[in-house]
Amino acid sequence: MQLTVLGCYAATPRTLTNPTSQVLEINNHIILIDCGEGTQVELRRHKIKFSRINHIFISHLHGDHFFGLPGFISTMRLLGREKELHVYGPKGIKEAITLLLKLGDSWTNYPLLFHELSSKASELVFEDSKISVATIPLDHRIYTNGYLFEEKIGKRKLNIKAATEYGIDKAYYQNIKNGKDVTLDNGEVIVNSKVTFDPPKPKSYAFCSDTVYDESLAEKIKDVDVLYHESTFLESELELATKTKHATAMQAAKVARDANVKTLVLGHYSTRYKSIELFKEEASTIFPNVLLANDGKTFNF
Amino acid sequence: MQLTVLGCYAATPRTLTNPTSQVLEINNHIILIDCGEGTQVELRRHKIKFSRINHIFISHLHGDHFFGLPGFISTMRLLGREKELHVYGPKGIKEAITLLLKLGDSWTNYPLLFHELSSKASELVFEDSKISVATIPLDHRIYTNGYLFEEKIGKRKLNIKAATEYGIDKAYYQNIKNGKDVTLDNGEVIVNSKVTFDPPKPKSYAFCSDTVYDESLAEKIKDVDVLYHESTFLESELELATKTKHATAMQAAKVARDANVKTLVLGHYSTRYKSIELFKEEASTIFPNVLLANDGKTFNF
Repeated sequence: MQLTVLGCYAATPRTLTNPTSQVLEINNHIILIDCGEGTQVELRRHKIKFSRINHIFISHLHGDHFFGLPGFISTMRLLGREKELHVYGPKGIKEAITLLLKLGDSWTNYPLLFHELSSKASELVFEDSKISVATIPLDHRIYTNGYLFEEKIGKRKLNIKAATEYGIDKAYYQNIKNGKDVTLDNGEVIVNSKVTFDPPKPKSYAFCSDTVYDESLAEKIKDVDVLYHESTFLESELELATKTKHATAMQAAKVARDANVKTLVLGHYSTRYKSIELFKEEASTIFPNVLLANDGKTFNF
Repeated sequence: MQLTVLGCYAATPRTLTNPTSQVLEINNHIILIDCGEGTQVELRRHKIKFSRINHIFISHLHGDHFFGLPGFISTMRLLGREKELHVYGPKGIKEAITLLLKLGDSWTNYPLLFHELSSKASELVFEDSKISVATIPLDHRIYTNGYLFEEKIGKRKLNIKAATEYGIDKAYYQNIKNGKDVTLDNGEVIVNSKVTFDPPKPKSYAFCSDTVYDESLAEKIKDVDVLYHESTFLESELELATKTKHATAMQAAKVARDANVKTLVLGHYSTRYKSIELFKEEASTIFPNVLLANDGKTFNF
């Protein structure tokens, strides 16, 4: 699982900081999460092929999380895209994009499919043989969802060494890969697990931005491998955080601790602070494994 | 008159090229012309104060000319703007911006005034004591206007040396500045022009993008000082230019020549060409004074 942070700063794009957008590579899916202004340029900068992105998940309709989407969708048309593009986001996103394209008389020539969200309960919004994606309802100033991305358990892999030792003929290998046991000529049954490796443990990633501190969030993302939780502010601005329905680094750490996540990634920083290291220092006082998102940074999990 | 080109490339924003946006400083007005994605970051990069911009003129509603506008308008709110912002652009622009802000529950806290255009004839859309702005109807794939910015003739300036030589008392200086003649104690009348300098010749700027080659355009922009005319293509792509309702560098030069402009600035280049110098070479074959716009370039006229 690989996470590339295209932008992780709050409010407005600046010369050195981008608004929220991330690319998550998970089980061969390339997923775009949020799409602030400038996202398409950051994708180019990181040489991520637009054509590999088939699913876009938008958390909420504040500009710093979706004003790059109309341009991205338009560029896909100019690049000659033909395959489906799925956009998941709050109700209203379809009307907005449709209106902008209509005004430019430039509707897409590829199928653009909107999956509009309005439920306040978690929903499974995408699933295939490789991953599932569910919403994580968040409490922000407007209707907002985080997203929980989970790998499906993969197939067991053939252990050629073990199979050879048991004297199993290669003709049976496909059966073994398909999970079957093998009966030897002498009648002995070799159970599948003896000639296969366990599949890699499925990974999970929870994207939670933007949100006020919410104690109940931990329950919804229990035991995830990686939690990206917004930390717009430090505890010194707790009152402002609460008022604007954002969280502090300390609060993000509390969620990570209570949810028993493996790794916490902080982001969505206000640009008022001198160094983002301050966020890590604060969060690390109560949760050990804290990473700092930053524009252009790639994490491998 | 100063023109700062924030972006002058066609189609989509890229790592090294920006879509259309310009800042025109004319007679103490700071005007934003078009607002492709990324414009607000380019404004920051060039240290142009957002608060000094009170008028935005949008040519047409293709994304590369206005997808940066929602973000710019939102940022103005975050920066605490209080004074009016006037946006001129095709009918529909108000609905688009209003919808985007409404979805984010983030209406501006400053007066945002739209001046929607739908006439196919030239209209005077702004005028004060310093400048006037009129539309230049263009022929593109969707409803499009160029804009003609013209300085008003300024006041004559006091020529202190001449006034002293005539022995005029300082008490009369304000009258002279106001255009009055002066009667000396001996009854001699000193006409105003003898003790004043001519005001600077008023400058004019015509922004024409996007447009197909239109012979009749020259008549509408006769004798302007500076013409910015799109040249998406070279003559080798004349057919494509005509089909997509864009112009070639040669065609831009024809308009400049027929309109008897002083300076032609080329821009809105397709990124298919190796060097933008090719545009200048082509245009220079029939018009002498050709400048090339480029992102970040500032021209003083």
